[in-house]
Amino acid sequence: MNPNCVIESIPNFSEGRRPEVISEIVNGVRSVEGVKVLDFSSDSDHNRTVLTIAGNPGALRGAIMKLFEGASKHIDLRVHKGEHPRMGAVDVVPFVPIRDCTMADCVELSKEVAREVSERYSVPVILYEDSCSSENRRNLADVRKGEFEGMATKLAKAEWKPDFGDPHPHPSMGVVAIGARMALVAFNVNLDTANMKIANDIAKAVRNSSGGLRFVKALGVELKERNQVQISMNLVNYKKTPIYRAFELIRIEAKRYGVNIVGSEIVGLVPGEAIAESFAYYVGLENYDLNQILENRL
Amino acid sequence: MNPNCVIESIPNFSEGRRPEVISEIVNGVRSVEGVKVLDFSSDSDHNRTVLTIAGNPGALRGAIMKLFEGASKHIDLRVHKGEHPRMGAVDVVPFVPIRDCTMADCVELSKEVAREVSERYSVPVILYEDSCSSENRRNLADVRKGEFEGMATKLAKAEWKPDFGDPHPHPSMGVVAIGARMALVAFNVNLDTANMKIANDIAKAVRNSSGGLRFVKALGVELKERNQVQISMNLVNYKKTPIYRAFELIRIEAKRYGVNIVGSEIVGLVPGEAIAESFAYYVGLENYDLNQILENRL
Repeated sequence: MNPNCVIESIPNFSEGRRPEVISEIVNGVRSVEGVKVLDFSSDSDHNRTVLTIAGNPGALRGAIMKLFEGASKHIDLRVHKGEHPRMGAVDVVPFVPIRDCTMADCVELSKEVAREVSERYSVPVILYEDSCSSENRRNLADVRKGEFEGMATKLAKAEWKPDFGDPHPHPSMGVVAIGARMALVAFNVNLDTANMKIANDIAKAVRNSSGGLRFVKALGVELKERNQVQISMNLVNYKKTPIYRAFELIRIEAKRYGVNIVGSEIVGLVPGEAIAESFAYYVGLENYDLNQILENRL
Repeated sequence: MNPNCVIESIPNFSEGRRPEVISEIVNGVRSVEGVKVLDFSSDSDHNRTVLTIAGNPGALRGAIMKLFEGASKHIDLRVHKGEHPRMGAVDVVPFVPIRDCTMADCVELSKEVAREVSERYSVPVILYEDSCSSENRRNLADVRKGEFEGMATKLAKAEWKPDFGDPHPHPSMGVVAIGARMALVAFNVNLDTANMKIANDIAKAVRNSSGGLRFVKALGVELKERNQVQISMNLVNYKKTPIYRAFELIRIEAKRYGVNIVGSEIVGLVPGEAIAESFAYYVGLENYDLNQILENRL
């Protein structure tokens, strides 16, 4: 692993209401030399914060330890309530390859961090996504099923024995999922109808789970103040299922209902590569090379 | 001016045939601390090399001096022949704002470099593009008209008095144009016809000079081995005339002849921003922010 490569991590932790706690935890992470805090966003209904950081493997490892240090001081899942499913004070820690590194490097880092977390904080770790030790642990929703309150029973089963640490959830911190995954693109498409039946049908048509595109997760969402509906998507592998394909398939499905696309949005960060590949589709670029993008050469 | 900003420079020099001379000149530039050589490409018919470098203002200034040092040793325009019009051993030095700087910063840098070049190498400088001292000097083709062989007569005229240096071309190095400009995008679109009349008509329709888009230069080009023609374009301000607009206008013009677009290409480097803006058009992005591109945040 190149010690100067760039990896992104998007840890989610279970505090979205107490600003002083959130800023203390985030500032702890920020204090680690070589770590860049790219974004953080707290949701009070979810009572959860999503942090986006980037840096080299050593710096990220230090940052995740700081995150556990802060969470261990301030978050107690026994008294935590929120709409979003969660099983840990630090709930999930994904690592995403960005520059000069492979998915295998991120898997390696995820295991090093998992070992250190289990040893230093006695929090059991389940490896997920590309780091998973068996296929039933790949999907975060499956790993988290039962949530904090169900973890003692779940970890006692042989099939859910933690990859690192004892098969007992930490009393206040619970369990954490750590793993490597592709960067995902949160991409939403708005339609000129307020009919949620249509939104749900189209979401079903484009998502993998019900017969659509392999790397698309999709939901219909109501945009009340606009009197429109939205197909809200996560593109979990934009290399294999690029943005344009999801977009054009929605256009085609919407035709059945006489409905049109009126706009779209990208939520949060998106790799330039994902944009470039879809641009290349629309103007039919031949022999295109990502090294031609100036920013990639600086 | 932020001393750590990133500026790009694409100097053209009049040697494209002697590999040992080209590599000595390029290596001289490369030896300057803080300068990154992004690309260089030599054309033997043109007898000319296009060098693409980037760095902070101080580093670039040093790099351009190294370039003049190399050119003064090895290039003598009195014996130089090539298909491309030229007036100097170092023919043209554009500066392009890339990161944390403005066009005004690049104009400032171009004048500092121009002064130093005229003082250290006795090469007269005409400022062009955004650095020009009068409108008739903005366009490089106008500045270079008459070429090396006509420069003694040209510089003697009041309207072509150099901005820096004496009104006499350097005996072997001639005259150089230095200035600040926007990054340009070299974008070519291929059509499913071999008819050059159609290519020329479409090029005429889309380019600024004959009634087309304000910041497009375009030519029809024959692609013999493909039995196709190409509209070869320079988009000289991709912010005001974005890629998609030129592309879609060609599609519309081609319709008149029953001709279709079969592909396109980007030549050399392209700012990620230019790609992102056209992507945003095709998927109708609302409220899009360039800071959402991950690479811009690292």
